[in-house]
Amino acid sequence: MHGEGLRRVEDAYPRVVELAKRRGFFWAAYEIYGGAGGFYVLGDLGVKVKERIADLWRRMFVSPYGFLMIDAPTIAPHVVFKASGHVDNFKDPMAECVTCGRKYRADHLLKDSGISITEGAPISELEGLLNGNGVKCPECGSAKWRAKPFLTMFETRIGPYSDDIGFLRPETAQNMFVEFKRVFEISRGKLPLGIAQIGRGFRNEISPRQAMIRLREFNMMELELFIDPESKCPYVELVSEEELPIVTEDMAARGELRPRLVKVGEALSNGLIVNDWLAYFLVVSKKFLVALGVPEEYQRFHGKPEGERAHYSSQTFDHEVLIPGLGWVEVAGLSYRTDFDLRAHIRHSRRDLSVSIPLQQPVERKIVSWRVRDPKEVGSVLGDKAGRLLEIVEKHKHDENLPEIIKDELSIEANHLLVREERSVVEHTKRIVPHVVEPSYGLERLIVASLAWAYRVKEERVVLSLPPYIAPIQAAVFPLVTKDGLPEKAKMVATTLREEGFEVYYDETGSIGRRYARADEIGVPYAVTIDYQTLRDDTVTIRFRDTWEQRRVEVKELPEELRRLLKQPVFLPHAHFLR
Amino acid sequence: MHGEGLRRVEDAYPRVVELAKRRGFFWAAYEIYGGAGGFYVLGDLGVKVKERIADLWRRMFVSPYGFLMIDAPTIAPHVVFKASGHVDNFKDPMAECVTCGRKYRADHLLKDSGISITEGAPISELEGLLNGNGVKCPECGSAKWRAKPFLTMFETRIGPYSDDIGFLRPETAQNMFVEFKRVFEISRGKLPLGIAQIGRGFRNEISPRQAMIRLREFNMMELELFIDPESKCPYVELVSEEELPIVTEDMAARGELRPRLVKVGEALSNGLIVNDWLAYFLVVSKKFLVALGVPEEYQRFHGKPEGERAHYSSQTFDHEVLIPGLGWVEVAGLSYRTDFDLRAHIRHSRRDLSVSIPLQQPVERKIVSWRVRDPKEVGSVLGDKAGRLLEIVEKHKHDENLPEIIKDELSIEANHLLVREERSVVEHTKRIVPHVVEPSYGLERLIVASLAWAYRVKEERVVLSLPPYIAPIQAAVFPLVTKDGLPEKAKMVATTLREEGFEVYYDETGSIGRRYARADEIGVPYAVTIDYQTLRDDTVTIRFRDTWEQRRVEVKELPEELRRLLKQPVFLPHAHFLR
Repeated sequence: MHGEGLRRVEDAYPRVVELAKRRGFFWAAYEIYGGAGGFYVLGDLGVKVKERIADLWRRMFVSPYGFLMIDAPTIAPHVVFKASGHVDNFKDPMAECVTCGRKYRADHLLKDSGISITEGAPISELEGLLNGNGVKCPECGSAKWRAKPFLTMFETRIGPYSDDIGFLRPETAQNMFVEFKRVFEISRGKLPLGIAQIGRGFRNEISPRQAMIRLREFNMMELELFIDPESKCPYVELVSEEELPIVTEDMAARGELRPRLVKVGEALSNGLIVNDWLAYFLVVSKKFLVALGVPEEYQRFHGKPEGERAHYSSQTFDHEVLIPGLGWVEVAGLSYRTDFDLRAHIRHSRRDLSVSIPLQQPVERKIVSWRVRDPKEVGSVLGDKAGRLLEIVEKHKHDENLPEIIKDELSIEANHLLVREERSVVEHTKRIVPHVVEPSYGLERLIVASLAWAYRVKEERVVLSLPPYIAPIQAAVFPLVTKDGLPEKAKMVATTLREEGFEVYYDETGSIGRRYARADEIGVPYAVTIDYQTLRDDTVTIRFRDTWEQRRVEVKELPEELRRLLKQPVFLPHAHFLR
Repeated sequence: MHGEGLRRVEDAYPRVVELAKRRGFFWAAYEIYGGAGGFYVLGDLGVKVKERIADLWRRMFVSPYGFLMIDAPTIAPHVVFKASGHVDNFKDPMAECVTCGRKYRADHLLKDSGISITEGAPISELEGLLNGNGVKCPECGSAKWRAKPFLTMFETRIGPYSDDIGFLRPETAQNMFVEFKRVFEISRGKLPLGIAQIGRGFRNEISPRQAMIRLREFNMMELELFIDPESKCPYVELVSEEELPIVTEDMAARGELRPRLVKVGEALSNGLIVNDWLAYFLVVSKKFLVALGVPEEYQRFHGKPEGERAHYSSQTFDHEVLIPGLGWVEVAGLSYRTDFDLRAHIRHSRRDLSVSIPLQQPVERKIVSWRVRDPKEVGSVLGDKAGRLLEIVEKHKHDENLPEIIKDELSIEANHLLVREERSVVEHTKRIVPHVVEPSYGLERLIVASLAWAYRVKEERVVLSLPPYIAPIQAAVFPLVTKDGLPEKAKMVATTLREEGFEVYYDETGSIGRRYARADEIGVPYAVTIDYQTLRDDTVTIRFRDTWEQRRVEVKELPEELRRLLKQPVFLPHAHFLR
């Protein structure tokens, strides 16, 4: 895919950060006020890359399957995150310097001092390690620490009453759980039902570091797929031969992070992956990152051992990619959340969130009914025990074992007083609380991964070799020179392309070489140049960013040609998924 | 545009609310927890309408002009909204019932009791009116009130320190002001510079009412246009004959809300509109709402008199539209914010946010310089006054009036001791703090306005007659019957259209008439039906939602035909704007 002479560099990440700030992909927010840790701005190019990545994600995770989008509030009442378990579990270990009052992530302080800890270690253990090892406060040098858990949700008050606490969502997922029943009804009541959301997430980090990687406010793309756990994923057989680079939970627990390649079919049959939908979406996730420019060899699915997983998960793979110049970074988490969340909201809301779904095969069921042959007879035979007997019959009238129950409770044989009836019903539906499989992505991290893998150098110049369907600007239009009517013609071409829906920029300043260089640096895949020949035969050159090759096309064919060149990869024929 | 027999209804708004909930455009959030006032969810269809409206907005307000998007944090440190004036001004009058403690908007309580107040009346006056008129508490019936201002920003803490207060932005605009200098540099330093953002806004209403109209969390589209106030809007002459339905500030102050039609040129020349960019964007705004389906006759620009305007504004027109079944609703505010915000951030950040811009005409400027002919001579002539003289010369050396200043201060004639030099410099740039014109839109209100104006009834059926480029689903694909290979062919057609980028849904359940009805109700403009003839000659019918007319086209021409049908209106030729 990449042309001759395009060279990767070791330190892509810091170079991307510099380029991003200079050309406007992203930069630290609130610079004029000295910055605010953990907040970033996407500039114009960043917004456009983000939109294209989000669009590709929807094309790979949502639309082919008929899944549904929602756009729900980022603020939720306290009860939502109490129910979800976040109020009790979404905490980081915080260490406060007793001397100067400065606060840090306790585990980061320890790791920075070379002291190894197990993920999820209790807070008292961390405090002991900090004080026992004489870890110094980076601010004042003292070594006396107090550690406690810190709730990493942003808290606010909704309305004028001080006890109406609300939280900014740490994940978009809870919206899908809380709104599940309504969406299920809207979508005519079928499973699997996917509900997806692209929007802000918030995490009140104690002390954010690592620029765009660890943010306090970020963009997420999440799919909550509601399934019948007894049903099969119809697509998994299409990918059973696909290989996944897996760090198993056991390997992870031993600290072995070099993945081994496992075929999907094998991973499912030997229980490495506990759910077939989860396995399927691991494949989609791999292909998604490949489509963003991250080679398969630099991806891994990091199985999280028990104790390191989020409280709601029964299996989680962190999708990690190597970002050149930075290291391995988690860009997604794929989890099997079971029915944990829906059951939690059932308990807290006291609403029925179970659903009735059609059975594949109707089931015939026998129903037993008991009644008293003659109430008068019961009275005359049993005397003051009669009332008690009638109660028991009413309560257990569908229980096959009613005579034994009566014997246990009243010490009498009552068979001769009872009538047993039996009928059979055919059931076409069953009621279940759906289980959930969740692929969840951090958009900023995907942007960074895409840019870092696209970063190339050629003849001392930077070429941002983004996949064309991810490029923020799709075409540049240049008049060769600024005279003889070339700018006018170029503007007409640019206008036509814009009206056809392309993201185009027009540039007439400086030499044509300089203009190509400016376009290459921000990843414009195609530069259209209007020259003197254009005036004669209405053709233009398309110059390709990666190869610097040029091709002549007719102006009237340009939109169709660009549409063809910019087409997203099709992962599997969509017709497979139409229901 | 609308077909035969499509009938408007008086009560469109409540019907739209019902339809929206049933089919999934929008509904109240957190229903299972009894709801949370002021929070709504956009469902799948709502998300798609929102995206199309946002896309049209960018096509009309941003991309033709080369303006830039950003996507910045919703949380800002305290200083940002202190500087902007929101901490001091973004307040609503709150009335608390002294008996039961319930809290209300003081002005709403009064209006509901038929007591008229002037907008912006002081809080003590409202308290007096409540108590003096015996207004009863809707909760407990008591009539004793305490009123005070309530800050309607959501407050939170950033990080673990309790004094690091942050706010959720009540407008996206402040991001543009705070990041202005960086974006200006990225964009090669030219004015006008437009910075636009689409994202969440938050307003902690005391007691929200009116469903999707008054929300605590909502989506905004804002453009901050940074201009040199001495320059002209180059586009305003293109629209000088356009008529605007204006309620002037004077009319508004007198309570006359029936607009009068004023031509743009006239409104500018007689000072009804104080800035030409503002006038230009009033026209764009009118055309935008027309493109969303709101007829011109049901729009007005409501000039806000002094005292009713936001603290930052020197002129504001609320763009109001009549929503059938609801009334007049503000969907946008267009303001001339002058340099208020940039100067506020200059003061608080102590950063230089002024910019150097090229002058249209270079300016020749004379620079006078004075110096002392000979310091020794000064000493011998003036004695102990010599030091003082040298100080004055240093301080006022470029002041033409230096001799007079000396005379005033020292009561001496010093001309013979001084040398006057004059040189001239040609200035090509000037330094200014840009002024800002802001068009600002509430997306949820635009969605409601579009749906309510699209709502039609035909033969007892609902037809949501949305402009095709706003419709959430662009085409439905139906096999006429579910046999003889028609579903397979239909799925292939649907798949092709999806791969071409269209939003398509496939439906094979129920009669064809029922399927048309389901599609009409959610505004699908084109239904493609695959029938037996399709198998013979590869043609399909396109059935038009509004006219129920059918037209036969070849399958291979379908994408091109749909692209043509779905094209957005072009407001003005884009080539006008290319720079």
